[in-house]
Amino acid sequence: MASTSSPIRVAIVGYGNLGRGVEAAVAKNPDMQLKGIYTRRDPSQLQPLNADTPVHSMDVLLSHKGQVDVLILCGGSKDDLPRQAPELAAHFNLVDSFDTHARIPEHFANVDKAAQGGQCTALISAGWDPGMFSINRVLGEALLPDGATYTFWGKGLSQGHSDAIRRVEGVAGGVQYTIPVEEAVNKVRSGVRPELSTREKHQRECHVVLKDGADAEAVRKTIVEMPHYFDQYDTTVHFISAEELARDHSAMPHGGFVIRSGNTSAENKQVIEYRLQLDSNPEFTSSVLVAYARAVHRLAQAGQHGCKTVFDVAPGLLSPKSAEQLRAELL
Amino acid sequence: MASTSSPIRVAIVGYGNLGRGVEAAVAKNPDMQLKGIYTRRDPSQLQPLNADTPVHSMDVLLSHKGQVDVLILCGGSKDDLPRQAPELAAHFNLVDSFDTHARIPEHFANVDKAAQGGQCTALISAGWDPGMFSINRVLGEALLPDGATYTFWGKGLSQGHSDAIRRVEGVAGGVQYTIPVEEAVNKVRSGVRPELSTREKHQRECHVVLKDGADAEAVRKTIVEMPHYFDQYDTTVHFISAEELARDHSAMPHGGFVIRSGNTSAENKQVIEYRLQLDSNPEFTSSVLVAYARAVHRLAQAGQHGCKTVFDVAPGLLSPKSAEQLRAELL
Repeated sequence: MASTSSPIRVAIVGYGNLGRGVEAAVAKNPDMQLKGIYTRRDPSQLQPLNADTPVHSMDVLLSHKGQVDVLILCGGSKDDLPRQAPELAAHFNLVDSFDTHARIPEHFANVDKAAQGGQCTALISAGWDPGMFSINRVLGEALLPDGATYTFWGKGLSQGHSDAIRRVEGVAGGVQYTIPVEEAVNKVRSGVRPELSTREKHQRECHVVLKDGADAEAVRKTIVEMPHYFDQYDTTVHFISAEELARDHSAMPHGGFVIRSGNTSAENKQVIEYRLQLDSNPEFTSSVLVAYARAVHRLAQAGQHGCKTVFDVAPGLLSPKSAEQLRAELL
Repeated sequence: MASTSSPIRVAIVGYGNLGRGVEAAVAKNPDMQLKGIYTRRDPSQLQPLNADTPVHSMDVLLSHKGQVDVLILCGGSKDDLPRQAPELAAHFNLVDSFDTHARIPEHFANVDKAAQGGQCTALISAGWDPGMFSINRVLGEALLPDGATYTFWGKGLSQGHSDAIRRVEGVAGGVQYTIPVEEAVNKVRSGVRPELSTREKHQRECHVVLKDGADAEAVRKTIVEMPHYFDQYDTTVHFISAEELARDHSAMPHGGFVIRSGNTSAENKQVIEYRLQLDSNPEFTSSVLVAYARAVHRLAQAGQHGCKTVFDVAPGLLSPKSAEQLRAELL
């Protein structure tokens, strides 16, 4: 775990919000070097944050094997990562942010097979949920086995729910915020281990721009009654102008809490809380990916091949500092 | 990381508040078995929580080698652990809660030498600070390199400061609570990265029982002006009766916050907060020790000998669940 003298060479695969976040994050880590961005688009059309960052076509990626220590995959969990991660893990060490919780075991198996075959190290599902929140769920349970874990999300912009709103007839645009119910959070914090329904944990707040001539009440009803997305929640719908949407709702804040509440004896309750308040969800996720890229590089150097998750990574591996320095300064 | 079928056999060395907490914690972990308590006192005089727990003299510990997978050292950091941990690490896997931050590198070196020599695995400085707070300092820095870390303690009973009060002439008894200054915590949470003096971060609150005929004002002055312990803080002293002290101040609550605040870009601040609210400081520390005993057992089984810290332990190693189960249920 000693600090290496030559920088860790990373590359970005896919350049959306997450890719831009990774470019910004690598610049804040002096032990890392960004070798380039690989895109399916025309490389000449892509505008990296730093004009000096090399941009390549995905087609040449395989020929750059040996020039990159770790790939950071910045595609989507629906279509990109399930295909890309197993393909690339046969040739490169990599990290991804695969976040379809239900399909993680399947994704793990596919990536593991490829990485084992190629003697590479791949870490899937890094980010904050899955990711840092998952770590806190595991630690909470391990430290307080007689207890209950609660995850709250928000206040934050939910991409999936915003997309659902925008598909409603009569809607020109809109965003959805997920908001933890304060009463529920405080009850959990008090250590009483309440049973909470979906409705009791989160509220949903929509800001919607109507198309010309659309029926506001019909739109509102369609949204709040939408099965799975909204019907199990208390949802409020605010109608706003296109200007207000652009001015007040283009940031991507998010965050939330993981709270473990448990008893170490009949008399004594203990509460552990992990909280994130994020101005930018994609930039934070990117920062997590970059720190895990460092860990992946070290695991690969130690010959620990195959697929890993955040559960397999010791905290010290994420830091650029040496083990000695960490013990002396931060323990 | 698969769940083992035979229980992990642990033993407690030293039976004070921490030892009692470990006895309670092991009972909440079905994959562990408490083989016994080892004490320097007369074993027949010791009253374990569970009357069936075997109690032995320290003198026989070495002859029980092979019957115990991991020792949990529950002595003090001042006199017991610096001597015991290196001695025992030559023969047993073990975990301790050594918490003299400044002497950790020295303690690590001594324990590492012994553990390497004996092919044993020893983990030092487990607990919450050092321990869980340390992990969050490392993770915070790794995820948000452009940022600042703040540790606040309390509201909680400080053993060291309570002892200092009790040494003052005219004092028959007393306790000291460390209290984070709410204003400072809120400023840090807002993401502005303030520079905070010692006085601005914590207050100290003392509850003191006077000896007959003692001069209250002289006692108060001696306490609030005590170098290092109190002079750098705003300290309030309340005089109470011996009955009030026993009735209202015999619990050992503690806790605190580690907050990392940083920027991922010029526009976007991100705040990570880890918070503990503990009804019982020793019982929580004990629960952490027990979870790390599980990890130590697994590291030893994997042939990873020598001295370790919480920075070297992957989260999954702390859980009784298999890696498959963790990925499916908690990622």
